[in-house]
Amino acid sequence: MESVTLGMILEARERLKGIIQRTGLVEFRALEKNGARIFLKTEDLQNTGSFKVRGAYIKIAGLSEAERAAGVIASSAGNHAQGVALAARQFGVPATIVMPSGAPLAKVKATRELGATVVLHGTVYDDAYEEARRLQSETGATFIHPFDDPLVIAGQGTIGLEIMDDLPTVGTILVPIGGGGLASGVAAAVKMLHPNVRVIGVQASGAAGMKVSFDAGHVVCLESAKTIADGIAVKQPGEVTFALCREYLDDIVTVDDDEIAQAILFLMEKGKMVAEGAGAAPVAAILNNKIELSGDVVALISGGNIDVTMISRIIEKGLLRAGRVSKLRIVLQDRPGQLEIVSRIIGSAGANVMAVHHDRTDVDLDIRDALLEITMETQDREHANRVIEALRTSGFTVM
Amino acid sequence: MESVTLGMILEARERLKGIIQRTGLVEFRALEKNGARIFLKTEDLQNTGSFKVRGAYIKIAGLSEAERAAGVIASSAGNHAQGVALAARQFGVPATIVMPSGAPLAKVKATRELGATVVLHGTVYDDAYEEARRLQSETGATFIHPFDDPLVIAGQGTIGLEIMDDLPTVGTILVPIGGGGLASGVAAAVKMLHPNVRVIGVQASGAAGMKVSFDAGHVVCLESAKTIADGIAVKQPGEVTFALCREYLDDIVTVDDDEIAQAILFLMEKGKMVAEGAGAAPVAAILNNKIELSGDVVALISGGNIDVTMISRIIEKGLLRAGRVSKLRIVLQDRPGQLEIVSRIIGSAGANVMAVHHDRTDVDLDIRDALLEITMETQDREHANRVIEALRTSGFTVM
Repeated sequence: MESVTLGMILEARERLKGIIQRTGLVEFRALEKNGARIFLKTEDLQNTGSFKVRGAYIKIAGLSEAERAAGVIASSAGNHAQGVALAARQFGVPATIVMPSGAPLAKVKATRELGATVVLHGTVYDDAYEEARRLQSETGATFIHPFDDPLVIAGQGTIGLEIMDDLPTVGTILVPIGGGGLASGVAAAVKMLHPNVRVIGVQASGAAGMKVSFDAGHVVCLESAKTIADGIAVKQPGEVTFALCREYLDDIVTVDDDEIAQAILFLMEKGKMVAEGAGAAPVAAILNNKIELSGDVVALISGGNIDVTMISRIIEKGLLRAGRVSKLRIVLQDRPGQLEIVSRIIGSAGANVMAVHHDRTDVDLDIRDALLEITMETQDREHANRVIEALRTSGFTVM
Repeated sequence: MESVTLGMILEARERLKGIIQRTGLVEFRALEKNGARIFLKTEDLQNTGSFKVRGAYIKIAGLSEAERAAGVIASSAGNHAQGVALAARQFGVPATIVMPSGAPLAKVKATRELGATVVLHGTVYDDAYEEARRLQSETGATFIHPFDDPLVIAGQGTIGLEIMDDLPTVGTILVPIGGGGLASGVAAAVKMLHPNVRVIGVQASGAAGMKVSFDAGHVVCLESAKTIADGIAVKQPGEVTFALCREYLDDIVTVDDDEIAQAILFLMEKGKMVAEGAGAAPVAAILNNKIELSGDVVALISGGNIDVTMISRIIEKGLLRAGRVSKLRIVLQDRPGQLEIVSRIIGSAGANVMAVHHDRTDVDLDIRDALLEITMETQDREHANRVIEALRTSGFTVM
């Protein structure tokens, strides 16, 4: 099986100079863990908002004139689409991207704006993939695989070289894994030069194909890949990426969707940074103590292309879970002045009322009672519990 | 009137070395305007999430041992609170911050975590200010003004020096203005060294105290200061800051709350950056063509401390305004299959249905009709209009 050499990654770095953003490594002081310093590699600030342009550019750079003239084709619901579109435009190569019809319109639009022809086909990624393969056999265009290609992997591996250049003291690097292109490239680049640096992969627990394949000893295809981290929602890792990850990764840990959502919110509030689910996964692993850390640690933020409606939903859920927003159901005797008393108790306890809903028609209620639903802002769950305690002490039934 | 010298600003820069973040200047490629290159000065990544720590640190650095022992006091609903708390902690000086009771709990908590004693008093900033002045006269602590103090202004002015160091080719700098501490400091620093660089202030139109004062020729106190940019919601500029702004600013432009919200969303989506309202104001001015631009332009992002619930609201409103989410009210004859036909038309037009509400009780309806409310995702307003047209062509009444 064709694989990746250090020379290919070093060559990729030379080719990418001046073409892509040389993204920074910023210390994330809000996330100190037992004295370990955490740094973020900010590929969310890469052109097109994710690392994908690196591998796509190196792949197209390796095509012959005749191949370039026949164009390139790819299937993607997300970042790979924009990465291929931008790289193709830089070479003046025509690009066709097949996307499932349900792809976020913002991503379809962004891909078109980069000059690619977008074909909407089917409802899920697999449909789009089949159609891309069919179109390829018709047109003779080159199919650009999102991860299982040595040149694509070499392109992504340049991130590993940049991390080592910027932080020679790094002891641990955390990399998100979907199909494994990014993780195998970064791990190979780092380990071939610095075998003592730990490189750990992070997968979404609902799409942990690489981890399952590790345990099985061969590539396994999951029945489903379900996670809010759409950038790493991959059912089956590649053969090339599997072999490289087995050779170079120290470990793989998993994080669930709640942990990923919490990390997205944490990065926004404390880091003032917009990360997509896949990009936030390494921070989720740190926040939830999935890895023992010491020394200098790099969390690779692979991208920032998250739908703003998803951000809205994550904010709402995150505030509820952290007890920063609480919903109370209070039984009131239906007579004047009750709402005023409740409001006063909540206010004295230092919470802010955000919304009130008053209902006398709940079937579980006594005919003379009413149900008051209060949404309030609190500091944390403990604070919310103190408010509830104060209401109960004053004789109210809080459900 | 005591004012600010170049020497004070240069001295402030020396004192701040190693104490604060040397924030970066990043090119914002998504916001090219007629060939002008736009750079963002990222004070959202400053310690405490805003520039305020600079001025507070320089002010406390100038206090005598006896003054430091008596502590410092400030009133603030936001960034100044955290700036003073952090600066005081760095000198081991006790800090008391008076905040209005309605201040966001996250900001109260953050200020306490920086070691300050937080006193909650009154309901608006003016109440907190009065209480801080009263406490000061009791305790002999030094009151740290949020803007109208030459040392505070000199501290903020260091940002101007950093911009000139990082981008000597800069032609225009856009700075948000509330009380004027940041704008007068930056304008003074830049103009004293480089009189040909344009420095333009940006105010919220609902709180344009500095602009109104410019026009009047003297400091004016507004009746109210209403804007979502709480960091610049100031009724009255300072005397020192007014004099400096008159001397050094080239112009002041204003942006309204819709323009600010649009800029916050644009920075999140295209820049992967979380900016608060005040911080986004310069980008709002650029997006809405308030200034003729050419050459290299710096937009000063003054801070990133925005409540995540505000982000949620901005996302929802922003998507509606841009036509990326549309709500349709469609009159249906209340018989089977109608919803299916509507869904098919919307789907064929390339829009995604997000929510459906079906109502037969609307008083304006014929007894046999029903009202269908559809929330759908579209690419832009024009796309939404094409969907509406397709529905009308098929005989549906769209309101």
